[in-house]
Amino acid sequence: MKINNNFFKKKNYLKLSLICRVLSVKKSVKDLNINSIIDLENAKKNDISFFNSLKYEYLLKKTKAKFVISEKKYENLVAKYCNPLIVDNTFKSVAIITKLFYPNSLNDTIDFDLKTPSAKNYKNVKFGQNILIGKNVKIGKSTYIGHNTLIESNVKIGNNCIIGNNVILKNCKIGNSVRILDGAIVGKTGFGFFPDNIKNERYPHIGIVIIEDNVEVGCNNTIDRGSMSNTIIGKNTFLDNQVHIAHNVKIGKNCIITGQVGFAGSSIIGNNVQIGGQAGISGHLKVGNNVSIGGGSGVLKNIPDNSKVIGYPATDIKNFLKRDK
Amino acid sequence: MKINNNFFKKKNYLKLSLICRVLSVKKSVKDLNINSIIDLENAKKNDISFFNSLKYEYLLKKTKAKFVISEKKYENLVAKYCNPLIVDNTFKSVAIITKLFYPNSLNDTIDFDLKTPSAKNYKNVKFGQNILIGKNVKIGKSTYIGHNTLIESNVKIGNNCIIGNNVILKNCKIGNSVRILDGAIVGKTGFGFFPDNIKNERYPHIGIVIIEDNVEVGCNNTIDRGSMSNTIIGKNTFLDNQVHIAHNVKIGKNCIITGQVGFAGSSIIGNNVQIGGQAGISGHLKVGNNVSIGGGSGVLKNIPDNSKVIGYPATDIKNFLKRDK
Amino acid sequence: MKINNNFFKKKNYLKLSLICRVLSVKKSVKDLNINSIIDLENAKKNDISFFNSLKYEYLLKKTKAKFVISEKKYENLVAKYCNPLIVDNTFKSVAIITKLFYPNSLNDTIDFDLKTPSAKNYKNVKFGQNILIGKNVKIGKSTYIGHNTLIESNVKIGNNCIIGNNVILKNCKIGNSVRILDGAIVGKTGFGFFPDNIKNERYPHIGIVIIEDNVEVGCNNTIDRGSMSNTIIGKNTFLDNQVHIAHNVKIGKNCIITGQVGFAGSSIIGNNVQIGGQAGISGHLKVGNNVSIGGGSGVLKNIPDNSKVIGYPATDIKNFLKRDK
Repeated sequence: MKINNNFFKKKNYLKLSLICRVLSVKKSVKDLNINSIIDLENAKKNDISFFNSLKYEYLLKKTKAKFVISEKKYENLVAKYCNPLIVDNTFKSVAIITKLFYPNSLNDTIDFDLKTPSAKNYKNVKFGQNILIGKNVKIGKSTYIGHNTLIESNVKIGNNCIIGNNVILKNCKIGNSVRILDGAIVGKTGFGFFPDNIKNERYPHIGIVIIEDNVEVGCNNTIDRGSMSNTIIGKNTFLDNQVHIAHNVKIGKNCIITGQVGFAGSSIIGNNVQIGGQAGISGHLKVGNNVSIGGGSGVLKNIPDNSKVIGYPATDIKNFLKRDK
Repeated sequence: MKINNNFFKKKNYLKLSLICRVLSVKKSVKDLNINSIIDLENAKKNDISFFNSLKYEYLLKKTKAKFVISEKKYENLVAKYCNPLIVDNTFKSVAIITKLFYPNSLNDTIDFDLKTPSAKNYKNVKFGQNILIGKNVKIGKSTYIGHNTLIESNVKIGNNCIIGNNVILKNCKIGNSVRILDGAIVGKTGFGFFPDNIKNERYPHIGIVIIEDNVEVGCNNTIDRGSMSNTIIGKNTFLDNQVHIAHNVKIGKNCIITGQVGFAGSSIIGNNVQIGGQAGISGHLKVGNNVSIGGGSGVLKNIPDNSKVIGYPATDIKNFLKRDK
Repeated sequence: MKINNNFFKKKNYLKLSLICRVLSVKKSVKDLNINSIIDLENAKKNDISFFNSLKYEYLLKKTKAKFVISEKKYENLVAKYCNPLIVDNTFKSVAIITKLFYPNSLNDTIDFDLKTPSAKNYKNVKFGQNILIGKNVKIGKSTYIGHNTLIESNVKIGNNCIIGNNVILKNCKIGNSVRILDGAIVGKTGFGFFPDNIKNERYPHIGIVIIEDNVEVGCNNTIDRGSMSNTIIGKNTFLDNQVHIAHNVKIGKNCIITGQVGFAGSSIIGNNVQIGGQAGISGHLKVGNNVSIGGGSGVLKNIPDNSKVIGYPATDIKNFLKRDK
């Protein structure tokens, strides 16, 4: 993840001592500048990261982060590889520090900077009518933009794309030869918050949506941006209508995702995966390469490479046919 | 339900004798003025109501309505508590009388009164571009309205709300600090009609949509207004993208409804209910407080308080895990 | 299917010798002019057609096409009724020839011909604001068109229709007294392509969407046009919100399709069919007349007339109740 995107203004650094004070963590190490807060995989030496599930132990082992927010039960494990900052609730603490780094990442509001694009600034782009475009939007050559479409500030679109009518793009980078069909909404904040009986608190979403070359995004799709990492749609993947993709989901290359499929947050889908209509993929799962998932399935577990699954819960297609008898 | 909303013009009263004549019911009581037609729970002394299922016997017992439309099979039961008006088809009769009271409640048409809002009339509201607003719309302080959004006549929006882009609001009242995300459509007539092989006949929808404080409505949601009562989304409830809520549904406080969930008509959902992605809730059900419903579930029966259910049909999570073995 | 629609420009004819050369098929018959490529059922004498599944043998027997594209394994069968043109991949070959006949049918792009409609040209039509309409659009008497709606070139709309707000219509013909509700998208190309690991290749879609009299299309519906035949919604059928209908689907008369139902490509649904919310119908199936399909069902097989099915996979409702015990 390139966290230094233009979408969310980041403080250059925060003092470790400040972070510890805010989290009520005692640390006797020498103070230093922390550059960012970021997931284990992408953290650099002077970043802070976080650990909250044994599933991610393999990432903990190789992270470059020296300081890792975690809870009491993981203290010894984290201490093997880095300096643990032990808190009561990892997620709440991560949110608090993220807000400190990115003061504007919490709330999606209206982009009031949108204006009718001037032909001068977009010489090789063909525009429909009633289009509004924000500041610092880059659009490649021979790209078409449909009627009534809104493109918020800082979005980048490649060459030879077709962006349909009534599309809304924010917080995203779009490759070449991408087609975003009518009514799709890309890049809004994910459905992540800390439930609270008085007033739910939003989780910051500093990831963006990355759509690679040759992707097709269907009509009325909703693709949310990531919280602490990006949402990614891999090269040459095609999404049918009314697909919903939650925050942090990463879909591989050459996938075929049929109508009304839904992905809960943070799942990772391999390459050459085919998913039938209305199937649902639970959160935080890993679906391997060359997997086929039948229409209407509910995937509740990881799926290994080269599997064919169907059913709710999704199971090997042979079991399903047996179960059905 | 406050039936005296501004959305549907109501006749002040109808003579009981006229109602009886229209329904071909013979009544030898003294004639009187009937103020309205309304469900058992909300009926007042001079209203007429209706009874069509033993499920609602508990409401029949305590209704204040003196006259209740029903069918032959329930005549004796209804007669215990009120004066039955016995007809062949309760629903058709209710529709006929409702049309008499509310001549404009049948068909959603285009609101041709929409205009660009004048800054004068909305001093503390911040507007995007290409917004159209109807007559008698009230918008609270510090509320933002996004680009291309349509707000039909008589809608009321509270303070500190964010109404996104491409949103359509009609026949609804929105509390404070509510966020309606891009592409949501709130308040259209429900999917209620009398099937007929020549031409289906629409059922009147005189309820509205009430969205309480701190609610979030996700992108591309569709929330239909009620037929004879209101559709309600309780305080601090969050709805993810592509959720569909049919007419008369009442969702409690502090609920978390994930992507692509659907509610059929007239179900009542308690407080603190969590529903996983793509789950479906059948019509006319009661889901208790503190219930957790797994992603992809199909809820076909009432769910008691404090249950955790999953599956299709949804069952206690322990059974599901067993069944899955 | 009336293939001579205005939506896709067709070459008047192609020489058989050219077609054979493009497909690398050797034919020693006398050369002639082929008028079109079309499905078996609708083919006329001088059309070319194609055969790729034993399911359609009954159509092969009665087709009027003299030349039929097929594969080695069906050569003898096809030869009984017509002249087989044997290729490696029927679908790819059909796509290649279709592209030759209809050079513009491959890619949906933006209709840059859209303009604000002039009242002169549409005397008995009532328009909302910000509407854009293409060339050669016909709209019947007493039809209302809502705000922000886009109607692309060549679309035809009947009398007494209500086309809602934010609707997008392309490649479709709409009967009388039809209601298309807010946010619906009708007539885009179907989700049909030849998967390829470098760059998926789109399949041409030369069918249109036909919406018959008295139909209601719900909010945010997506109805794709057909590839080699039309997508059809029969008279007096009502579709609830967020329904998805893929290419070539044919739905009969007087059907009731509830919220979030999805249809995969090419299925044929009878008359008087009722489908509960979130049900999914797989591709290439036949659902009979007077069928009732329970909410949340996944229909994976043909369903005979007068059945009541439910479940995933959908089964007779009696089995479902037993299975549930």
